Amino acid sequence: MTPNAVWMVTSTALVLVMTPGLALFYGGLVRVRSVVNMMMFSLSAMGLVGVLWVLYGYGMTVFGPGEAPGFAGNPLKDLGFISTDPGSFVSAGFGATFAMISTALISGAIADRVGLGSWMLFAGLWATLVYFPVAAWVWGGGWIQKLGGMLGTADVIDWAGGTAVHISAGAAALALALVAGRRIDFAPGAHRPHSVPLVTIGAALLWFGWIGFNAGTAQNDAQAGLIVVNTIVAATAGIMGWLATDALRGRRPGAVGACSGAVAGLVAITPACANLAPIWAILLGILAGAACAVAVEAKYRLGFDDSLDVVGLHLVAGALGTLYLGFFATGTGLFTGGNAGQLLVQAISVVAVAGYSFIVALLIALAVRAVTGLRVPAEVEADGIDGRHHGEDAYVLAEEVRS
Amino acid sequence: MTPNAVWMVTSTALVLVMTPGLALFYGGLVRVRSVVNMMMFSLSAMGLVGVLWVLYGYGMTVFGPGEAPGFAGNPLKDLGFISTDPGSFVSAGFGATFAMISTALISGAIADRVGLGSWMLFAGLWATLVYFPVAAWVWGGGWIQKLGGMLGTADVIDWAGGTAVHISAGAAALALALVAGRRIDFAPGAHRPHSVPLVTIGAALLWFGWIGFNAGTAQNDAQAGLIVVNTIVAATAGIMGWLATDALRGRRPGAVGACSGAVAGLVAITPACANLAPIWAILLGILAGAACAVAVEAKYRLGFDDSLDVVGLHLVAGALGTLYLGFFATGTGLFTGGNAGQLLVQAISVVAVAGYSFIVALLIALAVRAVTGLRVPAEVEADGIDGRHHGEDAYVLAEEVRS
Amino acid sequence: MTPNAVWMVTSTALVLVMTPGLALFYGGLVRVRSVVNMMMFSLSAMGLVGVLWVLYGYGMTVFGPGEAPGFAGNPLKDLGFISTDPGSFVSAGFGATFAMISTALISGAIADRVGLGSWMLFAGLWATLVYFPVAAWVWGGGWIQKLGGMLGTADVIDWAGGTAVHISAGAAALALALVAGRRIDFAPGAHRPHSVPLVTIGAALLWFGWIGFNAGTAQNDAQAGLIVVNTIVAATAGIMGWLATDALRGRRPGAVGACSGAVAGLVAITPACANLAPIWAILLGILAGAACAVAVEAKYRLGFDDSLDVVGLHLVAGALGTLYLGFFATGTGLFTGGNAGQLLVQAISVVAVAGYSFIVALLIALAVRAVTGLRVPAEVEADGIDGRHHGEDAYVLAEEVRS
Repeated sequence: MTPNAVWMVTSTALVLVMTPGLALFYGGLVRVRSVVNMMMFSLSAMGLVGVLWVLYGYGMTVFGPGEAPGFAGNPLKDLGFISTDPGSFVSAGFGATFAMISTALISGAIADRVGLGSWMLFAGLWATLVYFPVAAWVWGGGWIQKLGGMLGTADVIDWAGGTAVHISAGAAALALALVAGRRIDFAPGAHRPHSVPLVTIGAALLWFGWIGFNAGTAQNDAQAGLIVVNTIVAATAGIMGWLATDALRGRRPGAVGACSGAVAGLVAITPACANLAPIWAILLGILAGAACAVAVEAKYRLGFDDSLDVVGLHLVAGALGTLYLGFFATGTGLFTGGNAGQLLVQAISVVAVAGYSFIVALLIALAVRAVTGLRVPAEVEADGIDGRHHGEDAYVLAEEVRS
Repeated sequence: MTPNAVWMVTSTALVLVMTPGLALFYGGLVRVRSVVNMMMFSLSAMGLVGVLWVLYGYGMTVFGPGEAPGFAGNPLKDLGFISTDPGSFVSAGFGATFAMISTALISGAIADRVGLGSWMLFAGLWATLVYFPVAAWVWGGGWIQKLGGMLGTADVIDWAGGTAVHISAGAAALALALVAGRRIDFAPGAHRPHSVPLVTIGAALLWFGWIGFNAGTAQNDAQAGLIVVNTIVAATAGIMGWLATDALRGRRPGAVGACSGAVAGLVAITPACANLAPIWAILLGILAGAACAVAVEAKYRLGFDDSLDVVGLHLVAGALGTLYLGFFATGTGLFTGGNAGQLLVQAISVVAVAGYSFIVALLIALAVRAVTGLRVPAEVEADGIDGRHHGEDAYVLAEEVRS
Repeated sequence: MTPNAVWMVTSTALVLVMTPGLALFYGGLVRVRSVVNMMMFSLSAMGLVGVLWVLYGYGMTVFGPGEAPGFAGNPLKDLGFISTDPGSFVSAGFGATFAMISTALISGAIADRVGLGSWMLFAGLWATLVYFPVAAWVWGGGWIQKLGGMLGTADVIDWAGGTAVHISAGAAALALALVAGRRIDFAPGAHRPHSVPLVTIGAALLWFGWIGFNAGTAQNDAQAGLIVVNTIVAATAGIMGWLATDALRGRRPGAVGACSGAVAGLVAITPACANLAPIWAILLGILAGAACAVAVEAKYRLGFDDSLDVVGLHLVAGALGTLYLGFFATGTGLFTGGNAGQLLVQAISVVAVAGYSFIVALLIALAVRAVTGLRVPAEVEADGIDGRHHGEDAYVLAEEVRS
């Protein structure tokens, strides 16, 4: 094998484990009677999007040699991978794991109240109409990749998915939360994470996998090393930023905050990991940790029930990291290169992807609501969606042996 | 280092974590008072088989240059790795992790009722008399590897262990369950998984590690890419197959089912991952998910207490994947190559390995039962095997501080 | 990329996940009301040490071309990685993960009774004054690395951190436990692990990551293979050694013991993994498992509250493995090479690192105690440090929906 393929296959395994990791992270954050429901969102996203990827998704994310770069690549050219060049399988497998986690991320918006069928319908449509095309725009030869050339500026930088993954998932989460409406007991402090160790397990797997997520496409040793250093240190700085923010506002330090701070730093460094000096990665991590610590509380003031803060973490930190490149990208940022072109194209891509994903997700959510109702009945929500809708309790900790 | 060695060492780490992953998967599936017991089965299998592997097991799995390929390789030639060529250490380490998990898989058959000493005796004998020789037959130059040549057909295909790992473990589990007998409260619905998050953690580590399990011996980029794509998509299709089967028979969708579906797809693709087009991997995954969803309930009708469905998952999906190659193996299957020779040798290897492992495991289990009694006393089983036999409770969630 | 860089980057991900793994291992071992506190020790160590590493720590661990090898490398030369050669980023990232886990290890000494701010102050000072310099002595061109040359003997062997990681953390834990004092209910049997599955999850991630920890710097295939085999088999032998010791003294076999045995074997093989024949790695693992099974009970007789046995596991097994090389190191040990020079330099390095870390940790702990008091008030300890100090409960398993 070639070393780059070894690394990409390794990274595929790393990113693959992120979606079950997300299931655990999200699963730990919800109340005890919604754990199965929440984990099933991620597991079913893996099941569905993995199959769709091979059926037609991969083809949509790449514009082939003879294709005009329009809305998305031709899905027929890689239908079922039947005529796909085996030389592409390494990167096709890597891409599958990105599609899975991007879709699964959205599910944090709808804890406690949405049935599995409704979610799967939404997830399949969103992957098809948003993730696959946007990935083509950003990485597959599409318009965002060509934007710098069109405007005569530096090219848009989104190394591993600030726009295509985090902003698009965060904006979709906002739309889905708005259509789904608030939980019956939505209020500050009404929902405490049912298992902080489970949150920590999930965060551990996410951080671990993020090394592959960010560095999987590195082309040489120095680039891989820079990405790994930045990925690690942005997460650690995110922890420090969140803890410092909590300390400054008189809050006690919790592990959910520490894990969220690490995730905030990781989201922010995702687009920027290959184009920042490590010292700027630290600053970005601190800013992301601090910004997200504040942002996750906005939902109560603004009145939308983004239950597990997909907006407050992924949209906010994804936009922060993508825009930050406009100032600090090595050689091309406003402060590091002296002109505003990078910032301009970064801002355009943030707004475009956020806007596109929000609008399409809103339409999909409305369509799904029209078909399935989207939410489970209020009494199911009150009784606990795990027992009623899934027929399964997360825990059975006291049980008699019947002989 | 060479890239292939980097990948195999990476894969060794991935497969290594599968056995603790199995401890957690199985540990989550049992009742709360048997968690320590169940996890100890996997942990002790690692301890014992890891040591046996270096002492004499590795040598048994390979027929050396001058050895006639009989029952097993000469265990003396690699005794304690003292005279083993250091150039073999990379693959010897990789093989150790296969021996561990294959043995540990069997323990799912005996939840709640078998003591640790009895299990370790069984495990050491089974690894020695079944796993090591069968690995030599399938991969070390033995008769199954030569079967195609002998019969003038295509060679048997078992890339990563449909026969040597899953069928042999599944058949042994059936034998052990029969000898151990049923739990005192064996009945449909009597045993619910005590922790669905723990099951999910275990499944996550299994799926993650399976990338290394299947792709660790890939020889080139295209082959590694194909294996990874197939491994991912078969698991996702397995989830879909299981969930669809549950939906069709009016069951509510649970996370244990989703995780089991992923495992079913992974087991089925194990022998086949390097020899199927991805579109056939999807079909195999769906079939495996559906077949196992049905198969895991047969034990109640047939009356054997294979507690955690080693038979229903590993024997069924292992046989399905191995036989499926007879129809769909690229270039040589009945539908893909036009003759039945592949199917014939696949069927022979399935029957031979299943039969051999079942019979030898039955004899070992009877011998262990004669020596140790195999089962713990009925009152220990009723009281809970963790507290009584292991002196350790899985959880202590309420505790006073005594000052 | 080059294969060696691929492997080191992979290993960086593996070692990175060890510190969250340690958070879970330690988190499972404490009582239910101290889980958040204990996990926060590891998470905050990641946050703080990760940032310090990039700011000045990495520079301290290496003596540059023009630097005299004194106390530590010049921290200014790599300040913020601003003038660091990008070609060093791969190894700089790898090293960051070592600094994190080494610091986090110490926190096992202070369960239930120390606040987060006090810990972070200690952790930052210890990393700066002990870990960074000692790493320079052992691996960065410092005096321990030159000791063999100075004495005319073989060079000190500490492949992956018997001294720099385990002995230094274990000795610091002893100092910190002494300064912090005993818990209000310190006594044999007073503290049971609150979640054995969580301990097992942590141990799984530790063992998994240890493959990268030990083998990440391997230079060729045979060396990597040897290290991996030794790392696996020493851990399995550690399990067997611990279980056998428990059996011999009439104890029932528990999963915490099995996990601890694996960790004991892994600690002992850490310095020795590249310089032992596998058969001697088995012996070392058995000895480490047995020795630690006995050593972890000494704290009750000696009266220091090293809550989670950092001394009994890391100091004891780290010293055992480092000294064992004096007898069995391939070609240079007393039994394998015929002279005592190796043993002499191993012993000197053990004593020097243990003594240095103990004394400096003692001074740091006294200084922190003078500033912050170190311990939380007794009523916070009695009520539970999670709720009072961190404002977060590890579990919320019973909750009503308020509509």
